[in-house]
Amino acid sequence: MTSPPNTADTLIHAGWIVPVVPHGVVLENHSIALTGERITALLPRAEAQAIEAQNVLELPGHVLLPGLINCHGHAAMSLLRGFADDQPLMPWLEQHIWPAERAHVSEEFVRDGTELAIAEMLRAGTTTFSDMYFFPNACAATAQRLGMRCQITFPIFDFPTAWGQDADDYIRKGLALRDDFKHSALVTVVFGPHAPYTVCEANLARIATLAAELDAPVHIHLHETAGEVLMAVEQCGERPLDMLNRLGLLGPRTQCVHMTDLGDQDIALLAATGAHVVHCPQSNMKLASGTCRVGALRAQGVNVALGTDSAASNNDLNLFGEMQAAALLAKLHAHDASALPAADALAMATINGARALGLEDRIGSLEVGKQADLIAVDLRGPETQPLYHPLSQLVYACNGSQVSHSWIAGAAVMADRELTHIDLQALAVRTNQWQQRIAHTPGVTL
Amino acid sequence: MTSPPNTADTLIHAGWIVPVVPHGVVLENHSIALTGERITALLPRAEAQAIEAQNVLELPGHVLLPGLINCHGHAAMSLLRGFADDQPLMPWLEQHIWPAERAHVSEEFVRDGTELAIAEMLRAGTTTFSDMYFFPNACAATAQRLGMRCQITFPIFDFPTAWGQDADDYIRKGLALRDDFKHSALVTVVFGPHAPYTVCEANLARIATLAAELDAPVHIHLHETAGEVLMAVEQCGERPLDMLNRLGLLGPRTQCVHMTDLGDQDIALLAATGAHVVHCPQSNMKLASGTCRVGALRAQGVNVALGTDSAASNNDLNLFGEMQAAALLAKLHAHDASALPAADALAMATINGARALGLEDRIGSLEVGKQADLIAVDLRGPETQPLYHPLSQLVYACNGSQVSHSWIAGAAVMADRELTHIDLQALAVRTNQWQQRIAHTPGVTL
Repeated sequence: MTSPPNTADTLIHAGWIVPVVPHGVVLENHSIALTGERITALLPRAEAQAIEAQNVLELPGHVLLPGLINCHGHAAMSLLRGFADDQPLMPWLEQHIWPAERAHVSEEFVRDGTELAIAEMLRAGTTTFSDMYFFPNACAATAQRLGMRCQITFPIFDFPTAWGQDADDYIRKGLALRDDFKHSALVTVVFGPHAPYTVCEANLARIATLAAELDAPVHIHLHETAGEVLMAVEQCGERPLDMLNRLGLLGPRTQCVHMTDLGDQDIALLAATGAHVVHCPQSNMKLASGTCRVGALRAQGVNVALGTDSAASNNDLNLFGEMQAAALLAKLHAHDASALPAADALAMATINGARALGLEDRIGSLEVGKQADLIAVDLRGPETQPLYHPLSQLVYACNGSQVSHSWIAGAAVMADRELTHIDLQALAVRTNQWQQRIAHTPGVTL
Repeated sequence: MTSPPNTADTLIHAGWIVPVVPHGVVLENHSIALTGERITALLPRAEAQAIEAQNVLELPGHVLLPGLINCHGHAAMSLLRGFADDQPLMPWLEQHIWPAERAHVSEEFVRDGTELAIAEMLRAGTTTFSDMYFFPNACAATAQRLGMRCQITFPIFDFPTAWGQDADDYIRKGLALRDDFKHSALVTVVFGPHAPYTVCEANLARIATLAAELDAPVHIHLHETAGEVLMAVEQCGERPLDMLNRLGLLGPRTQCVHMTDLGDQDIALLAATGAHVVHCPQSNMKLASGTCRVGALRAQGVNVALGTDSAASNNDLNLFGEMQAAALLAKLHAHDASALPAADALAMATINGARALGLEDRIGSLEVGKQADLIAVDLRGPETQPLYHPLSQLVYACNGSQVSHSWIAGAAVMADRELTHIDLQALAVRTNQWQQRIAHTPGVTL
């Protein structure tokens, strides 16, 4: 232990601090000091009085915790929130989502949709998100401009889309983007092959080689439904996870999203290779995709993080809802009310997310030296009283609207629920303009 | 159609009105007039201008809908919110909940716990709740005092508790309470035999006779887990539902709560008798009780309503979360993303609830002549934009914190999120006092 600093930019006194590391710990009447981008002290309030700070914030009845990490989404699709719900998966995609995207997706669509998503995510406690969408340059620039931390996964397909022609083209543009943001403190750019059924073996092999050379993460939709796995076995005689492993694409830099179809051999392979799973419980339920075997994965030591997926299939970008859904679904699935307790659900939304993104040395917990990505949650309302265990309240009673403050890399991005970098009224005007255009897309019925 | 009135107490102009009856309808730019306890007009805004009203409210960007109906809970247990989460069911009850209840349950406990629950329910759009707990007199008086509509189900057990000695005693006190509130416009008092495993056959038969004589509803925990049903079959050779039917306790006045263990023959019996099912998806998941076959019940014409259960097993009393959980769980269970669409989930939380409680002639929809129980939901925030379909937004994107106004029997009980009858600060002080006492219960470990 080093002695606390004499000064700080910001000193926050809170009712409780949940640092996430060490696991399950709740510190009462503690304080945290921030200087520059980093956490410089975490100590009992009595000892913190000695620190001289430019800004001192009193947050009685609030709990401070690491900002939440949303490991999977398509932010710009927030402009399609509620556009075509309650449809079977293929009509939803083929008759609604894809035609709307073909007609409207552009840099401007991605810029405005990403800003809408970031506004929503910040208001519900998320400080880092992972994104896979067309025009990732527009998403990266928007996140950087708004002070939001993100992992941009540039999409790779075999076929043309609004953003590229073929795998070569996507990879070339993606690596250029990675180069553009190589000095960014907030934005990392990694490989995003869409899925094994949209990227052929040769291209996946090439991505494996490039990712290994660059030591870069790879983010991929995988085993989203049993149907997808069955189709691959019928067509290629191999489960997608086995194919990725054969091609050298499974390892500690690999982020496998969804994974609702998992045999014991799949779980053993994930554990052996150190690949990460991103669980998206609400999206998997809403699209009737299936249930990820979170309990079995965790029992075998596989790191499981959380994602919302897009607002078109969720329909919110709220990790409080996702923590609760993950915990409740795990209990139901295990026939055991003690499965996936609150502390574990919170770890999935924080430190496990940081591990999945390869950022665990920087974010995911409140520890001295780490980036100052943290949120305050006001537990004084009738929804979160009485308060025997702050961890229970965070996971089982909060709905995200209790998040009062948020800092990313030491900068206040929300204070008393006011966003410092986003003009919500101007954003609402642009959102409404997109709605009018999208609702009148030729050939699309609302 | 009668012509609209010339005057009204209150006239509300809203962006949208979702009356629930007719099913799935969304009226744009409509207005609603309230006079006394009732809805007196529902009409296009242009036509509403002719009505002279004492209070005129403009709610652009808001949707008006019937107040939500929470068909199962134990309000006073809000004082045990988060007291002992993530425990297997029996240790949770035997080592935590029951000892705490034995030590603390009193009229004062029920009064304060019920006020806390009502504050939370109102802030999340509930205007009617059903309650089963000790000292139902205290719950009834609190609801009446706070202007909240409720169905009090007086509890009946074979054994003594803080509120009674034996079935005779519970029934005697319950019927006296029913008599006390027979002229109440807000409170109805009905039979609440706890469960088939806590009330013997002879007492259930007696309740059947009394309920039939009084034409009074009966509310009962039933088939909450497969284990409960198996135990009954092993001990009595009969499924609990079959026993209730044999005793004459299954009919259109019966509210069967939970019902996670359902064979096709059970569903046929529920349909034939006209009994109602109260589905509590979040509680069933959190306690790992099982999954109610909502799709099959609805396909056979059984009325399915929604309940939160208590804040000790949920941990919120928020029907927006319950609607979403019900819809998502039904889709997952049916392997069909089109199962239980938004309009159906909303009907479960409104008109189906009214039917289950036998109050469908008074509440559950916005229709002229019905009681003016309604809420306004503000859809202008980034969480609920853009807005293609208000019904989708209500079920899949709202978390309850968007509820801005609430009326019960024509009286404003919440305006701009301020509760008119509850002092939240004074309530917080009393809640904290209970927390201190309960946390230090001898023999109970937190």
